[in-house]
Amino acid sequence: MRKVGVIGVGQTKFKRRPDASIREIAFEAFKEAMEDAQITPKEIQASVICSATHYDKQRTPAGVVAEYLGLNPQPTFNVEAVCASSGVGLRIGWSFINSGLHDTVAIIGFQKMTELSSAEVQEVMGRSGDVMWESPFGTTMPAYFALYAKSHMHKYGTTEEQMAKVAVKNHFYATKNPKAMFQKQITMEDVLNSRMIASPLKRYDCCANSDGAACIILANEEISKNATDMPIWVTGLGLASSPMALTSRDPSFASFDCSSEAARQAYRMAGIGPEDIDVAEVHDCFTITEIINYEDLGLCEKGQGGRLAEEGQTYLGGEIPVNIDGGLLAKGHPVGATGASQIRTLVKQLRGESGETQVKGAKRGLAHNLGGIGMYCAVTILEV
Amino acid sequence: MRKVGVIGVGQTKFKRRPDASIREIAFEAFKEAMEDAQITPKEIQASVICSATHYDKQRTPAGVVAEYLGLNPQPTFNVEAVCASSGVGLRIGWSFINSGLHDTVAIIGFQKMTELSSAEVQEVMGRSGDVMWESPFGTTMPAYFALYAKSHMHKYGTTEEQMAKVAVKNHFYATKNPKAMFQKQITMEDVLNSRMIASPLKRYDCCANSDGAACIILANEEISKNATDMPIWVTGLGLASSPMALTSRDPSFASFDCSSEAARQAYRMAGIGPEDIDVAEVHDCFTITEIINYEDLGLCEKGQGGRLAEEGQTYLGGEIPVNIDGGLLAKGHPVGATGASQIRTLVKQLRGESGETQVKGAKRGLAHNLGGIGMYCAVTILEV
Repeated sequence: MRKVGVIGVGQTKFKRRPDASIREIAFEAFKEAMEDAQITPKEIQASVICSATHYDKQRTPAGVVAEYLGLNPQPTFNVEAVCASSGVGLRIGWSFINSGLHDTVAIIGFQKMTELSSAEVQEVMGRSGDVMWESPFGTTMPAYFALYAKSHMHKYGTTEEQMAKVAVKNHFYATKNPKAMFQKQITMEDVLNSRMIASPLKRYDCCANSDGAACIILANEEISKNATDMPIWVTGLGLASSPMALTSRDPSFASFDCSSEAARQAYRMAGIGPEDIDVAEVHDCFTITEIINYEDLGLCEKGQGGRLAEEGQTYLGGEIPVNIDGGLLAKGHPVGATGASQIRTLVKQLRGESGETQVKGAKRGLAHNLGGIGMYCAVTILEV
Repeated sequence: MRKVGVIGVGQTKFKRRPDASIREIAFEAFKEAMEDAQITPKEIQASVICSATHYDKQRTPAGVVAEYLGLNPQPTFNVEAVCASSGVGLRIGWSFINSGLHDTVAIIGFQKMTELSSAEVQEVMGRSGDVMWESPFGTTMPAYFALYAKSHMHKYGTTEEQMAKVAVKNHFYATKNPKAMFQKQITMEDVLNSRMIASPLKRYDCCANSDGAACIILANEEISKNATDMPIWVTGLGLASSPMALTSRDPSFASFDCSSEAARQAYRMAGIGPEDIDVAEVHDCFTITEIINYEDLGLCEKGQGGRLAEEGQTYLGGEIPVNIDGGLLAKGHPVGATGASQIRTLVKQLRGESGETQVKGAKRGLAHNLGGIGMYCAVTILEV
């Protein structure tokens, strides 16, 4: 199987960006990735534009983004799997290169969410649930994940304090990441006393809507080896789906089937297991999601996710460092950019460029990118 | 290079479908394709869901479509390049199979456009132009293509009568296609006397918004050979882009650069030229577009598209039969379904299953799928 490498990564700071349009935000991440890879737009043979829809007026954004980035007449198009959009984009880019259609591909994920009011954003997000059977009844993202939280608490005894630990960890690491939205440490009390959003999820259990972009440059084996002394290889890919409607799912609501299936595929393709992962980025749209992800990815036994958080085992120096860039909770979650931002964090780790948060000798990283209410999941394994 | 075959195709009748939701329309096309390929949903290893956005309330439709079609937990996601969505979907499916990620992939294109009023549809369509610099000034799809028509008339002497000939041809062939929206022959007078939409484009120069779905099942070489005595092979793929903003394009406005570039790629990959094509499906969103496409695809010299139409050379029995299923003009144009519907027509032709409209001994077909105002173009070559 032909190898595919990551030769460049870039990311904007995630924050409110009333000053910039989507094309400008995408350009910032792309420019940084171009400089990182030391190549020019002309050398990019195709671009995959990844974002969720309806957050801004521009339909089919690949048109304006490719134009603004100087990527015409190369192939371009949009890929969407809500929050997992750029995780899916990476899979497509990989297959374009592996199949020999292209030698270099740019995966560009972005989102500008703050043009809408909070209420409008919630309405838009609700419509990434089933608009025939669910969203008309008022389901919002916090409500969906609150159901999973209640269920996990009931089944495994997971506590609000364990969830709060996740928020405290991720906000702590955000202060080490200049690209993160939030730059202030928070305490257990801050989380537990924060405003209730959808019981048991409080303000600090929820990630923040944000604006931002992230970019990954993939290349074939030869170009990757020429481009850098340390190419990072994409060695495992998994992608799976679950029914969108909650009524069609495992009624225990204590795990995301698409996560465990995508992880199984990725581990098998890479020929490794969860015990071989040195650093992980998992989709912590809510604190409970991070805890469930630990279990679904096999980083701990089922039902042990709360304990893992409580013991601080996912801090740097613990069993498996997770989201030590701040995660969605504190780095921010501009939906389409998140998957690519996870890859950027891992690439920096595997190159040994993570400074204060460097996992010493990290050789293998895993990114877990969940879409919507857990109806899509992309898992990617990167290796030095 | 590993071969990829088409082993099944399906399509709904294109028409107004107030009776059915998007998942139901998608199911109809999928079911027909499953029966055609004689396989079951469990054997489909991934699905690529192709549609333009904003025509109905459901965001991220892959979630509901994959669920309804029984395609969980297999990978699924959305691909969008407006009118070229399923042309792009086919490219992605091809690369998934060629790279060995999957052995079978379903490409499912659909659109339900008639939930919105005509005025709302025009507003939505306008936003597939640049919302910063163009759509706020009232550009609509007919206006965009009218500009190309005026320009082509000015540069090459193309006439309204020549454009009308395209409408007459495509409406004629729609009467032979039970899946087509319009089932009535029209005359030159009907076209020339029809209501002006955007000068010089009149009602019959424009395709109709419609509801519908089409599905393609791709498989690797081994499965394709086992599935049928006559697999149809995907031998050429091209995908290219042009700037979205008209100000950034070749100011002659008499051709679509992305079309000629995508065609060049596809011909080169297949190792053939335009003279080798026996039957073509080209993106006739407007009559002028079909004429320009003839030229961009090399089916005639630049400036000779009007003559080709006038002489009836694109009828069955002419130099090169084009859109003899009715085309977008008369079969209807449910945006996301169109590319897959073109492939369906070609597969039927290459299998010799096209009855009254069969091109005798057809061995090679070309599909040309244009996105938006010509900012994306996918060209696919199929061979027996």
